[in-house]
Amino acid sequence: MLYSLNTGGKRIRPLLLIAVAGSYRPVNEAVYTLGAAVEMVHTYSLIHDDLPSMDNDDTRRGKPTNHKVYGEALAILAGDALLTESFSLIGNINEEELPPRDALYLNRRLAEASGATGMVGGQVADMEGENRDLTLEELEWIHRHKTAAMLAFAAEAGGVIGGAPPEDLSLLRPFAEEVGIAFQIKDDILDIEGNESAIGKPVGSDENNGKSTYPSLLTLSEAKRKLRSHMEKAEHMLRSLTVPAPDLFSVLSYIEDRDR
Amino acid sequence: MLYSLNTGGKRIRPLLLIAVAGSYRPVNEAVYTLGAAVEMVHTYSLIHDDLPSMDNDDTRRGKPTNHKVYGEALAILAGDALLTESFSLIGNINEEELPPRDALYLNRRLAEASGATGMVGGQVADMEGENRDLTLEELEWIHRHKTAAMLAFAAEAGGVIGGAPPEDLSLLRPFAEEVGIAFQIKDDILDIEGNESAIGKPVGSDENNGKSTYPSLLTLSEAKRKLRSHMEKAEHMLRSLTVPAPDLFSVLSYIEDRDR
Repeated sequence: MLYSLNTGGKRIRPLLLIAVAGSYRPVNEAVYTLGAAVEMVHTYSLIHDDLPSMDNDDTRRGKPTNHKVYGEALAILAGDALLTESFSLIGNINEEELPPRDALYLNRRLAEASGATGMVGGQVADMEGENRDLTLEELEWIHRHKTAAMLAFAAEAGGVIGGAPPEDLSLLRPFAEEVGIAFQIKDDILDIEGNESAIGKPVGSDENNGKSTYPSLLTLSEAKRKLRSHMEKAEHMLRSLTVPAPDLFSVLSYIEDRDR
Repeated sequence: MLYSLNTGGKRIRPLLLIAVAGSYRPVNEAVYTLGAAVEMVHTYSLIHDDLPSMDNDDTRRGKPTNHKVYGEALAILAGDALLTESFSLIGNINEEELPPRDALYLNRRLAEASGATGMVGGQVADMEGENRDLTLEELEWIHRHKTAAMLAFAAEAGGVIGGAPPEDLSLLRPFAEEVGIAFQIKDDILDIEGNESAIGKPVGSDENNGKSTYPSLLTLSEAKRKLRSHMEKAEHMLRSLTVPAPDLFSVLSYIEDRDR
């Protein structure tokens, strides 16, 4: 469990959660705990996605994947336990920091965002779409479920623990869904234009694997236009919040300008 | 997900949960929902345990295992989603039936009973103990974590949703841990004395697989004595409850006398 948690990565989900929460109140341990829970769910999904029966990846973030080090059985169980532990973490946050009704709501939303109606559903659709051409709608459905749902949860969770007013809470999920799609488009662009040592995998691997991507369905320049358009929607929603949220604008810039 | 849920089995965890809850108040939909959540976690664990990299079982309850029908990737994901959905189910129970603080407590306890500190931890120890002789203490540690922890959760959850008084709640977990060990001893005895068509696997398969069991460590007659001793402890705790609980005595008899 710790091996995969400690391999680093962009930590984009806790980053987003903390940036949202920090827009409303000083960030404290409870916020970090929630961020850890979200990262643990993400890490579990990477461990399982990398398994031989799924994407069969030998490296992740430049290090051997979990099953390469510990074997398949322990990798499956490490993923299972990380997922499980995330619910325990949320349930253990101090009641003054996160009232039981809010914690229970977040547990339920985390389950929805990560399970059959969210991330796992997206992974199933992703696998079933392999080796055939996807439509843009299918590609978007996959990314909304596989990636954007958990980002939306991260943003909403940050809002809930930060004590955001209802009008902001109702913006944070759609905001983060735009961020999620933008994030994925950027990933696809980096796979074409990126620097191999920065992104940690061979440039052009999507094309070589016959994967449908935004550039392959839209052309590279159209994909860039679409990335900007999702960013603009996200920026617009950020400006509509009741607080200034400069850290969230920084997260947006980071996602759009990153080289890995 | 439905394929494995619908293959039946003894449903011992929801049975226990419902029998506890029903000792305190009429059983309603919320109780069944909690029972379903517990059975989903159990079913996820069976799907993952049966995988080629774990126990590599082709049949379960007389039907092909999940990965034999749907492939390994979907089996892993079905398990993941069943585990996740269980937390969602508990989070969706009506507040009048289960106040948010209680629901959150049960979510946390479910995570502890099923994750690294419970069932998954037991499965890891079980795998690491393969192909060597275990001590009785090691065997008991495995079963306390792999089996008894979830039975203890089922009993406690039944008590919480049934509105059991604190003195009963503090008995229900140790009660169910005794039941869990007894359950496992009975399983080991059935593997020697059982009827092949009733238990759904070849008699003697533990011995042929070189597995440490209660009879192999203790002799068959000592294992039977130990089964009775755990049952007596469980019966004693049942008699100490503030309610009569005849259904729980029936569950005990069922576990001790079952032929599968």
